[in-house]
Amino acid sequence: MTVSVSLGPRSYPIHIRSGLLHNLPELPAAALPGEIALVSNASVVPLYADALLQKLEARGQVVTTLSMGDGEEFKSLEIASRAYDELAEARFSRRGAVWAVGGGVTGDLAGFVAATWMRGVSFVQVPTTLLAMVDSSVGGKTGVNHPRAKNLIGAFWQPVAVLCDPDCLRTLPPRELRSGLAEVIKYGVIADAELFEFLERNLDAAMKLDGEVLSHIIARSCRIKADVVGEDERESDAIGRRAILNYGHTAGHAFEAVMQYGQLLHGEAISIGMTVAARLATALGTIENGAGNELMERQTRLFERAGLPTQTPEGADFEDLWAAMALDKKNRGAGVNFILPTRIGEVMRVENVSADSVREAIFSHR
Amino acid sequence: MTVSVSLGPRSYPIHIRSGLLHNLPELPAAALPGEIALVSNASVVPLYADALLQKLEARGQVVTTLSMGDGEEFKSLEIASRAYDELAEARFSRRGAVWAVGGGVTGDLAGFVAATWMRGVSFVQVPTTLLAMVDSSVGGKTGVNHPRAKNLIGAFWQPVAVLCDPDCLRTLPPRELRSGLAEVIKYGVIADAELFEFLERNLDAAMKLDGEVLSHIIARSCRIKADVVGEDERESDAIGRRAILNYGHTAGHAFEAVMQYGQLLHGEAISIGMTVAARLATALGTIENGAGNELMERQTRLFERAGLPTQTPEGADFEDLWAAMALDKKNRGAGVNFILPTRIGEVMRVENVSADSVREAIFSHR
Repeated sequence: MTVSVSLGPRSYPIHIRSGLLHNLPELPAAALPGEIALVSNASVVPLYADALLQKLEARGQVVTTLSMGDGEEFKSLEIASRAYDELAEARFSRRGAVWAVGGGVTGDLAGFVAATWMRGVSFVQVPTTLLAMVDSSVGGKTGVNHPRAKNLIGAFWQPVAVLCDPDCLRTLPPRELRSGLAEVIKYGVIADAELFEFLERNLDAAMKLDGEVLSHIIARSCRIKADVVGEDERESDAIGRRAILNYGHTAGHAFEAVMQYGQLLHGEAISIGMTVAARLATALGTIENGAGNELMERQTRLFERAGLPTQTPEGADFEDLWAAMALDKKNRGAGVNFILPTRIGEVMRVENVSADSVREAIFSHR
Repeated sequence: MTVSVSLGPRSYPIHIRSGLLHNLPELPAAALPGEIALVSNASVVPLYADALLQKLEARGQVVTTLSMGDGEEFKSLEIASRAYDELAEARFSRRGAVWAVGGGVTGDLAGFVAATWMRGVSFVQVPTTLLAMVDSSVGGKTGVNHPRAKNLIGAFWQPVAVLCDPDCLRTLPPRELRSGLAEVIKYGVIADAELFEFLERNLDAAMKLDGEVLSHIIARSCRIKADVVGEDERESDAIGRRAILNYGHTAGHAFEAVMQYGQLLHGEAISIGMTVAARLATALGTIENGAGNELMERQTRLFERAGLPTQTPEGADFEDLWAAMALDKKNRGAGVNFILPTRIGEVMRVENVSADSVREAIFSHR
């Protein structure tokens, strides 16, 4: 199936199908110019990038391959600089296209290089993790980390096409698959009760990598994100609709920041963050008809079935968490703003939540 | 006076007036947020950046100043990286604005940093050289050099406002002023016979830094470039109207590339390049009514009055020049494409000009 992301002249298709990488769909001309730079990482090269390289070369494309390390620490200006060196060496022209084959780190870095090589060349995303398929394949955010904070350096740069092949998830470590499911569950809570119910019925099939089920949840997730992003492409409106995507991320990012690197995957931090947010919603009474506990339970049950954590990790200090939340670039002013559910399928924005309420939501269940 | 650059949601004003920096005009809100990063270079700081800093601070803006070296060699990813470090140190937010005060090098680098800091912040240009006022203040091209070629790394990023104060030209070395005049003369030849005639009448006043005359020629030049750029903002159409701006640049860039760094200023190379192009036009018969010699003479006379070179420099080797022209990223295919005049105020594109014709045009007058 195909999800169309509508952004005027920057619109593009997301193709989603098992076996897609073995049998490429029809692609826009900008995706397949004579020269392609295929950016990948050491883990993904033997699994998918090599096969794709052969396929592209067989079609007559001249392909330059760039392989980076696999991990957030490689999403740096230094690695981008090495990519520029290799593109310069290959005399890569502004008529070329950069293809990113890998997870979010590869996509973010390759997208930034595409955005800035000769003031911008075409970009194609081939996400190979569930998180990258449902999150970074829509939104146009590209960039690298700065030693002081993640994603400080970057650009909005839309791909000309995205290829999601759920078969890639067969080689994904199970913990990474679960991490991606946290974002999928988020889409259900913020905007799509049907997706949430579909997950309640089909989570086991998804975890067993059923191609149809995965294609459906990837497509629904991309559709939701595409609709939200379409209203505010550059996230220029700080309190705009795009903020709903931050459900679970206010506390989640804080958990990521204060725990030691690698202890929590992004989706794990988000599932804890969504649990905190749902508890906050119940306490503040944002949930309709007093159904806070029911929402809380359904959400928690899904997380548990997906093998995702919902408990505040041992050793997390409230002062550190609060400082991280207040520092988050999406917050201004004294209090902290949260996206909180009103029911499954709808959220609202609550401003200036007090430290006491947040502390209670984080630690009350201990 | 004010020239409006019309680019839909990215439209912006260019304010042009003597004394403008002492008495700032009304500016869009995005130009004057609470936080400003003022990027300048060592030569310009004591002349203009310091005074501007005081003015902005007096208005309550928090200003972070970044000073870079003055010269093409500082337009590098390494210097951009240091700018990111300083912005991170200052906790510069995505609601800030980057102001560039200086020539083209400062503007290109600061613009690139603005384009890529937190995926893009507002950008204000305060060009202090004639070349930057008439060339880089319109077009949205930002970027840094790569050791292998100029401007390989960059982005299109439009300013929210441009401030041109011709009084700044009082401190510009005369050779730099003359270099800027080459681009002004170019605008006359490619699109504006009236501007050309105005220059014939008022060049001496311009060189004596008459504020009215300079404001007029800066405004006309910006207007022409803005009209051309408005039709093809991202230079996506390789044979589009934007190509006319390359009059004199095909051979000019080649002279810049083959001569030792610093031997020819950009405008000097362009005036030689325009002379070559006019000679080529006469030989190929593109000029209407057999008026090739007249156009050639009027153009040469203006260059000479402006103290600009028109002779092919000693030691320039044709094979090197031809290789540089053929390599230019704007050329594809075997021959070299030129923008050639049909009369003063109009040019056309001629494809695949032979090496013999170009050799003749470069060396025939020796």
